[in-house]
Amino acid sequence: MNGAESLVRTLVGGGVNVCFANPGTSEMHFVAALDRVEGMRCVLGLFEGVVTGAADGYGRMSEGPAATLLHLGPGMANGLANIHNANKASTPMVNIVGDHATYHRRYDAPLTTDIETAARPFSRWVKTSPDARSVAADGAAAIAAARTPPGQIATLILPADTAWNDGSGPVEVAPASAPAVVSSEAVAGAARVLRSGESCLLLVTGRALRQHGLDLAGRIAAKTGARLMAQGSNARTQRGRGRVPVDRIPYVVDQAVKVLDGLKHVILVGSKMPVAFFAYPDKPSLLTPPDAVGHVLARPEEDLIGALEALAEEVGALSTPAPVKNGPPPAPATGAVTPEALGISLGALIPEHAIVVDEAVTTGRGFFAPTLSAAPHDWLSNMGGSIGIGMPLATGAAVACPDRKVICLEGDGSGMYTLQALWTQAREGLDVTTLLFSNRSYAILRGELANVGAGNPGRKALDMLDLGHPDLDWVGLARAMGVPGGRVTTMEAFNDRFTEALTTPGPYLVEVVL
Amino acid sequence: MNGAESLVRTLVGGGVNVCFANPGTSEMHFVAALDRVEGMRCVLGLFEGVVTGAADGYGRMSEGPAATLLHLGPGMANGLANIHNANKASTPMVNIVGDHATYHRRYDAPLTTDIETAARPFSRWVKTSPDARSVAADGAAAIAAARTPPGQIATLILPADTAWNDGSGPVEVAPASAPAVVSSEAVAGAARVLRSGESCLLLVTGRALRQHGLDLAGRIAAKTGARLMAQGSNARTQRGRGRVPVDRIPYVVDQAVKVLDGLKHVILVGSKMPVAFFAYPDKPSLLTPPDAVGHVLARPEEDLIGALEALAEEVGALSTPAPVKNGPPPAPATGAVTPEALGISLGALIPEHAIVVDEAVTTGRGFFAPTLSAAPHDWLSNMGGSIGIGMPLATGAAVACPDRKVICLEGDGSGMYTLQALWTQAREGLDVTTLLFSNRSYAILRGELANVGAGNPGRKALDMLDLGHPDLDWVGLARAMGVPGGRVTTMEAFNDRFTEALTTPGPYLVEVVL
Repeated sequence: MNGAESLVRTLVGGGVNVCFANPGTSEMHFVAALDRVEGMRCVLGLFEGVVTGAADGYGRMSEGPAATLLHLGPGMANGLANIHNANKASTPMVNIVGDHATYHRRYDAPLTTDIETAARPFSRWVKTSPDARSVAADGAAAIAAARTPPGQIATLILPADTAWNDGSGPVEVAPASAPAVVSSEAVAGAARVLRSGESCLLLVTGRALRQHGLDLAGRIAAKTGARLMAQGSNARTQRGRGRVPVDRIPYVVDQAVKVLDGLKHVILVGSKMPVAFFAYPDKPSLLTPPDAVGHVLARPEEDLIGALEALAEEVGALSTPAPVKNGPPPAPATGAVTPEALGISLGALIPEHAIVVDEAVTTGRGFFAPTLSAAPHDWLSNMGGSIGIGMPLATGAAVACPDRKVICLEGDGSGMYTLQALWTQAREGLDVTTLLFSNRSYAILRGELANVGAGNPGRKALDMLDLGHPDLDWVGLARAMGVPGGRVTTMEAFNDRFTEALTTPGPYLVEVVL
Repeated sequence: MNGAESLVRTLVGGGVNVCFANPGTSEMHFVAALDRVEGMRCVLGLFEGVVTGAADGYGRMSEGPAATLLHLGPGMANGLANIHNANKASTPMVNIVGDHATYHRRYDAPLTTDIETAARPFSRWVKTSPDARSVAADGAAAIAAARTPPGQIATLILPADTAWNDGSGPVEVAPASAPAVVSSEAVAGAARVLRSGESCLLLVTGRALRQHGLDLAGRIAAKTGARLMAQGSNARTQRGRGRVPVDRIPYVVDQAVKVLDGLKHVILVGSKMPVAFFAYPDKPSLLTPPDAVGHVLARPEEDLIGALEALAEEVGALSTPAPVKNGPPPAPATGAVTPEALGISLGALIPEHAIVVDEAVTTGRGFFAPTLSAAPHDWLSNMGGSIGIGMPLATGAAVACPDRKVICLEGDGSGMYTLQALWTQAREGLDVTTLLFSNRSYAILRGELANVGAGNPGRKALDMLDLGHPDLDWVGLARAMGVPGGRVTTMEAFNDRFTEALTTPGPYLVEVVL
């Protein structure tokens, strides 16, 4: 059994059953081993940003790592932006990057690069396997690293000769360690703050945004009068009817500062003190008032649910009713297509157990409130800020959860980064409905140009923010990659097309012209 | 004048007149400055791989650097694969990467990454500007670094506050230094080898592949009986009727070893001893016979043309007739579409002064020989081996040379990496004819799977090499991005469509079904 087969058997034995891949010559032994080992599904992406974004979506929904298979330094580089996003979301992921054979590196063949150095800023764990007999053990270590709470990026570099020489056979992977229990001092400290009578925010993220965590956080807030909010972006939030609603820190600095005005305390549940996405002249980096104090109830790698349970008990909130949302969903909107109308129709039409992937950027900024009363669903956001995550993330979520409808809210500017994901959705028959919001611009940047005080833009500057001239035909792009679609210019047509897509299995793209 | 404007004025003053861009918030002051400074053309790419590949094509044809404008670490990461290719091609390039404001970095906002570390494996010069007053001087240093022979990648990181605070005003850029003259010992040594009577190869690349260099190399070879070849890949080769023909070291190891069999000496003119693109079990990394000796006539950064002139004089070859190719071009091929037939039609139809960008991979492996008698043209290859270079490179070459037809030979697998380049071609009205060879597979990998000894592939392995299911509709993709096109399935149709595209200005895509 060669090194590659040892590694594939180690992955499968360790519960890694999906590999998103765009392989090349140096990965051919790994690819060949897939046919000799049962239990590994391999999904091809036509660009590495699709591969790594899909692994992120898979990891968020399955709670275990997918593997990626990438071709040397440049292939990995193509996937780094979505690895960055996954890293910021603490998604478990095992990247396998082929490299030249160890003895071939010194010849500086065209694809030679320093893969380790390029990987390090985006990975928590990086290793180059030294020989074929080490590959399986290194693979097991990569899985263990990826599973380390709250989830990490592990990148294993696999020189070609370590794949084709004789390997060790599979290596058993240590069971995932449970997250650490928070100290009683942290719980007591948070309880003291909550009882102080001073203005307090319970700021949650990570697993605290699953239904049980929100239930606990909601009870604590209801009992103590604290406010409850989520970070601006979160890996996965369970929301909709029957669940505790949670609002997010706004993206726009002035709005965030206003929302957080008057706060004295922030209890951090896996979260950080809220900071501005970007710096702007004459605006603060820290969004809380200067005298607000952060109190760590639980660090990201700790047991957030256990911490909330302990805190709820400490403040006597376990018997407090959870403030769940039970209002009726809105009726779908009619008339002109506007961001507000789209939010209302989403609230009306999101089906039960849907997975909503949100890369709607400017258009979607207001979608959160009108979808609070939608049917129960999961909401996945971009925590790294690098655009091009949406369609890949939706692809991976659909691979992880074949019984759930995935709805991808996608901007046209962001969508163009990794549009190749549509082909993978078509090939795999994935149940993804993409709502492509076509405003023919990097609309967010118009606001940002003003926010940074760059003055009145002229023609050259505006051209850099404009996706028109020529207009992109998204229905045509999707069809050319095997995904059917339709274009809508009224809310009535939107409601019809969206409903049709939701009731038809397989991928579909609705181009929503704004 | 703020730092951003100081930098733009420094760039324009230093002869950098084109900026390929995909900006974000941190780059808005640079974008705004474009409207206040005359002389900078800014070209938007809808993905950073397009931006950096276009800068490579521009740099190869204009012989001066273009600037790129990229958005923090992830935006740069998206462009790294084509920066890698440009780096291996010694293309001059100035990358400007926006970063968070210096004081904002410590807050670890979502887009925060270690940009310097990620840039270093792909750049010869990297610097983060410390403050607004340093930005212009740093920009001047970046231009100087980019122009250092034979051409280098310079990456300047621009924290947002260094763009918006008061700058120094523009800084003058030092004139480009000429490449160093080779030593007389190197010339004498090469001459001695050529006179030895032992089997000798003159292996050229870089500027030696321009008409004058080839003319000199051809005379030397004709006079001394040495063989003349080019590296396997070269940044820019001038070829066709009236020029000295030069063959390349083959990609396939067995073929290369056979071609180089019996050699005793290799005179290196900007080149390296030829090595295999990849390692394969039981095949050599070095392609020359074990006892062959390399002799450096000129290192890549030295004056290759001067070295050839001195060597020609030394061996008395200046009056030897240059062995130019003057045969008639072939007639276009008819019948079924095959790689061989396509090569013949290309030889017949490539128009005078065309720029041919070659990312045809498997389909194009045999295109070189039948185009030796084509009308004079420039041929641009991928020196870094990372696919996705073709359409961006063609885009940049067309910006640099608006009076020349650009022909992009593109494989479907490679084309999908950076297909967004077609939109930029449409927006800018660039005169690029793309021949998209659609074999619906990563065909090269079928051979590689066998070459690495990975055995008989099964269904799962073959699925990873297959771009069908569903088939990509390239005419549809192009049309959806504003580029007209047509699909051909016979050589007669190919000849017609190609001729039509060549005689019509603007971008056009011919999908060639194999």
